[in-house]
Amino acid sequence: MSSPVKARADVDLNLLREVRQEVEEFNLEYCRVLDEGRIEEWPNFFTEDPLYRITGRENFDGGFPLGVMYCDSIGMMKDRAYAIAKTLVFSPRYLRHYITNTRIVSVDEDGSIESEANYLVLQTQLGEPTIIFQAGRYVDRFVRSSRNGLLLKERHCVYDSTIIDTDLVFPV
Amino acid sequence: MSSPVKARADVDLNLLREVRQEVEEFNLEYCRVLDEGRIEEWPNFFTEDPLYRITGRENFDGGFPLGVMYCDSIGMMKDRAYAIAKTLVFSPRYLRHYITNTRIVSVDEDGSIESEANYLVLQTQLGEPTIIFQAGRYVDRFVRSSRNGLLLKERHCVYDSTIIDTDLVFPV
Amino acid sequence: MSSPVKARADVDLNLLREVRQEVEEFNLEYCRVLDEGRIEEWPNFFTEDPLYRITGRENFDGGFPLGVMYCDSIGMMKDRAYAIAKTLVFSPRYLRHYITNTRIVSVDEDGSIESEANYLVLQTQLGEPTIIFQAGRYVDRFVRSSRNGLLLKERHCVYDSTIIDTDLVFPV
Repeated sequence: MSSPVKARADVDLNLLREVRQEVEEFNLEYCRVLDEGRIEEWPNFFTEDPLYRITGRENFDGGFPLGVMYCDSIGMMKDRAYAIAKTLVFSPRYLRHYITNTRIVSVDEDGSIESEANYLVLQTQLGEPTIIFQAGRYVDRFVRSSRNGLLLKERHCVYDSTIIDTDLVFPV
Repeated sequence: MSSPVKARADVDLNLLREVRQEVEEFNLEYCRVLDEGRIEEWPNFFTEDPLYRITGRENFDGGFPLGVMYCDSIGMMKDRAYAIAKTLVFSPRYLRHYITNTRIVSVDEDGSIESEANYLVLQTQLGEPTIIFQAGRYVDRFVRSSRNGLLLKERHCVYDSTIIDTDLVFPV
Repeated sequence: MSSPVKARADVDLNLLREVRQEVEEFNLEYCRVLDEGRIEEWPNFFTEDPLYRITGRENFDGGFPLGVMYCDSIGMMKDRAYAIAKTLVFSPRYLRHYITNTRIVSVDEDGSIESEANYLVLQTQLGEPTIIFQAGRYVDRFVRSSRNGLLLKERHCVYDSTIIDTDLVFPV
């Protein structure tokens, strides 16, 4: 029986830790933008040719491309952000992101990174109790840009939650 | 469009990481005291002239000084801690703090630090399910004391939750 | 009045931070195995003579050995894992672990480590909202194995939750 922890001993531990810290710092800023409702800045965290989707765990595990939210270009992301900020009508709500268990899966020689993290997003609407909005994990691929540091090439938000609010999908 | 992540590249990254670790360590101990119900030790984490308050997000964003709990002296904090420990009558409950997304906003030359972190506090009362007690973020100013390491000069606990238990306010 | 934070200044801070990072990395992998339902790998994280239990806060504080789940040998853990994986019939569910506030209590010269962390485990069953399954803290003792890195000698999962699902106990 091999230990999953032991399996990491042959990679460069210092590099993994450095990269984990970078990814944590990235997610700090990413979540802050969403928590503060600055939705129009959300596309800034992605490359020009990103894949972003929110999808259920069974879809993800089954390899299906479906998602309750699906953007495969930066234009789609900007449109979505603009719609949420400017045109959609919905009751005001606060979101709050808690990111834990950030885990680096691989670091390639070209600087790209595969990583995962658990997310918990809570939602508060006026006069209502704070509820669990979505629980899941990020499955990410980052690339390193000389101008902008880490950027997301892919973010799959894979939720456990089987009941989610599909009227209005905020990015997670 | 500038990336919020990129914006940090011109500060000393190593210093930020060192300070972030210190703040995380501080909050570990702070939360442990509250989680263990050692409320009388809570004022120890503050300077002699602190500001501590728990306030709603709208109040905070609007710049209003209000708060469901407000202490602007160490004496007020000690009185509050004493009252909770010794004189108030309330049903027993457990609190548990989860601190994530610790973010350093600035580090001044005199050693003072502005930082934020997301908090989630769960509450369990006897025979009842564990519930979300309060979700929000700490907005903090720390100073560095030669004798005691970091101390809180200001802690604003800014909650998203719009329904909170105002009968009895524990510090967060 | 001494600050609990200050009290750590006389131990080797770099060692504490190094060990804290190792324990966080261990828990990443531990939780991943449970989140992914790979229950049969769960015993791999323990020594050959482990103590694992899930117990209420009052039992723990009172020094009682009871627990809703109690394993004091690796054989018992493997049996439990096998039963969950192969023989028990229960409705499918997803668990998700959020580990925060990892705190190193002591590091002995022989490499053994006492530590604690807050855990939040959410559960999602098909067609039901995601709920708080269990909130509590790990009280751990690790030993260092030359072959496998850190291994758990003891893990006490001390839950705050007073209502827990005792029909079927998954490890936490």
